[in-house]
Amino acid sequence: MSRVAYVNGRYVPFARAAVAIEDRGFQFADGVYEVCAIRDGVLIDEEPHMARLARSLGELKIAWPIGERQVRHVMRETVRRNRVLDGLVYLQISRGVARRDHGFPAANVKPTLVVTARALDIGKYEALNQKGVAVITQPESRWARCDIKSTGLLANVLAKQAAREAGAFECWFVDRDGLVTEGASTTAWIVDEHGVLRTRALSHAILPGVTRGEIGPFCRQLGVNFEERAFSIAEAKRAREAFISAASFGVLSVTKIDGQAVGDGKPGTVTARIGKEYWSTR
Amino acid sequence: MSRVAYVNGRYVPFARAAVAIEDRGFQFADGVYEVCAIRDGVLIDEEPHMARLARSLGELKIAWPIGERQVRHVMRETVRRNRVLDGLVYLQISRGVARRDHGFPAANVKPTLVVTARALDIGKYEALNQKGVAVITQPESRWARCDIKSTGLLANVLAKQAAREAGAFECWFVDRDGLVTEGASTTAWIVDEHGVLRTRALSHAILPGVTRGEIGPFCRQLGVNFEERAFSIAEAKRAREAFISAASFGVLSVTKIDGQAVGDGKPGTVTARIGKEYWSTR
Repeated sequence: MSRVAYVNGRYVPFARAAVAIEDRGFQFADGVYEVCAIRDGVLIDEEPHMARLARSLGELKIAWPIGERQVRHVMRETVRRNRVLDGLVYLQISRGVARRDHGFPAANVKPTLVVTARALDIGKYEALNQKGVAVITQPESRWARCDIKSTGLLANVLAKQAAREAGAFECWFVDRDGLVTEGASTTAWIVDEHGVLRTRALSHAILPGVTRGEIGPFCRQLGVNFEERAFSIAEAKRAREAFISAASFGVLSVTKIDGQAVGDGKPGTVTARIGKEYWSTR
Repeated sequence: MSRVAYVNGRYVPFARAAVAIEDRGFQFADGVYEVCAIRDGVLIDEEPHMARLARSLGELKIAWPIGERQVRHVMRETVRRNRVLDGLVYLQISRGVARRDHGFPAANVKPTLVVTARALDIGKYEALNQKGVAVITQPESRWARCDIKSTGLLANVLAKQAAREAGAFECWFVDRDGLVTEGASTTAWIVDEHGVLRTRALSHAILPGVTRGEIGPFCRQLGVNFEERAFSIAEAKRAREAFISAASFGVLSVTKIDGQAVGDGKPGTVTARIGKEYWSTR
């Protein structure tokens, strides 16, 4: 079966799917995106992903290329046409095609909508989670509006590549105050030395992670003491457990930070409970 | 005559010129660009533009899609085929097309090269320069590596749009210390209250502007006292003159900053001499 992509109203063979060279997504990173997990052919956390998409578009004053209901339909249809059971759906909206000029184009320029879907080897993430992954850290280098899920991801690309070259899975950004903001494509969490589950509070400095947002509420039900409070690298290294979260895999144990073992160097039990609870409540 | 664009080895009708939806330029802003002025069909400041391009590619570890000599040939040929006498040539290189993944793709993935050219109404800039333009200011919001001429320009887009909505031509970014970094797409200059021509010294905070680099050397010959030293908004408002520089227009007088007149509110004589000297030495 051949893969198809949705581009501006049409389902086209993936290999031929293209956007204009003057698409503002290509020339200015003037666009936003979402990635949703698919399990058994169903979109996971669709509502918070759509709410975040609406917010990103609103912050950048990019109009919906088609109605929100139609966007949801296209996501489902792209999943169906590609027969994805377990995987991802990727959606990108740019401000559209216009003669190159930094300022916004005329109001009648139609935003670009691209949707793709692909299968994912879920077993790979389960295996990683059993073993735990390593993270490295780097000074925060991104722009001032990381709360907008924009395609301006070059700093994230460089950080992820640095992690890979160091044999790690992720890179955590650290702000001027020495506090972790988040990972290049994941939310950062620790169970600190006092047993408190911590992740940074929302602000312009981090993306409002959808998986992050889902975890908080049920933690209290699990009897886990949870605080939205930033942590330093030193606190992370002293932590009992650490993990990262993202739509694609839910939760992944972090067992090493900058080469140093977290806790006993094995995936933690609180992390495991949260990961299990996350998927059982989807 | 129909416009043509160069895309990965081919000259194609501009309206049909496209890149793949998984081009890393579109999905990650993982690419760089250059804009050179064309006057009488000739590329202006070609050497420093090519040197900067080589540096941007090197910093991001993006390979040349074709040899540098061939890139130069494509730029010339694109100008010729579009019969541009006075205008711009635009060149963009991305890390190429690969399955979406933040880290770098395999080494055999070929970078994408797009080159376009278009005529520009030079008279428009001359008229603007005669009258002077307004700038507004905003807190610096870009990433930590503004010295790389990347297509991650969303912060610049938002700043330029804010300027436009305020009836201004440009927005100057101001760092945490209250010092101007540069404009959304231009270099910022003042002739301060003591008659010293000033622009910020090169660092990761600003783009090494090609026009900026050309102006410095001949200023001394013009008898203008020149210092690479950052200035505050307050200093800019007290300045005798202010201007911006960019490849597309050379030099443009700034006569208003945040609504306040610079000097006597008219384009300055030092600015005029520098603008004249710049073009006469191209």
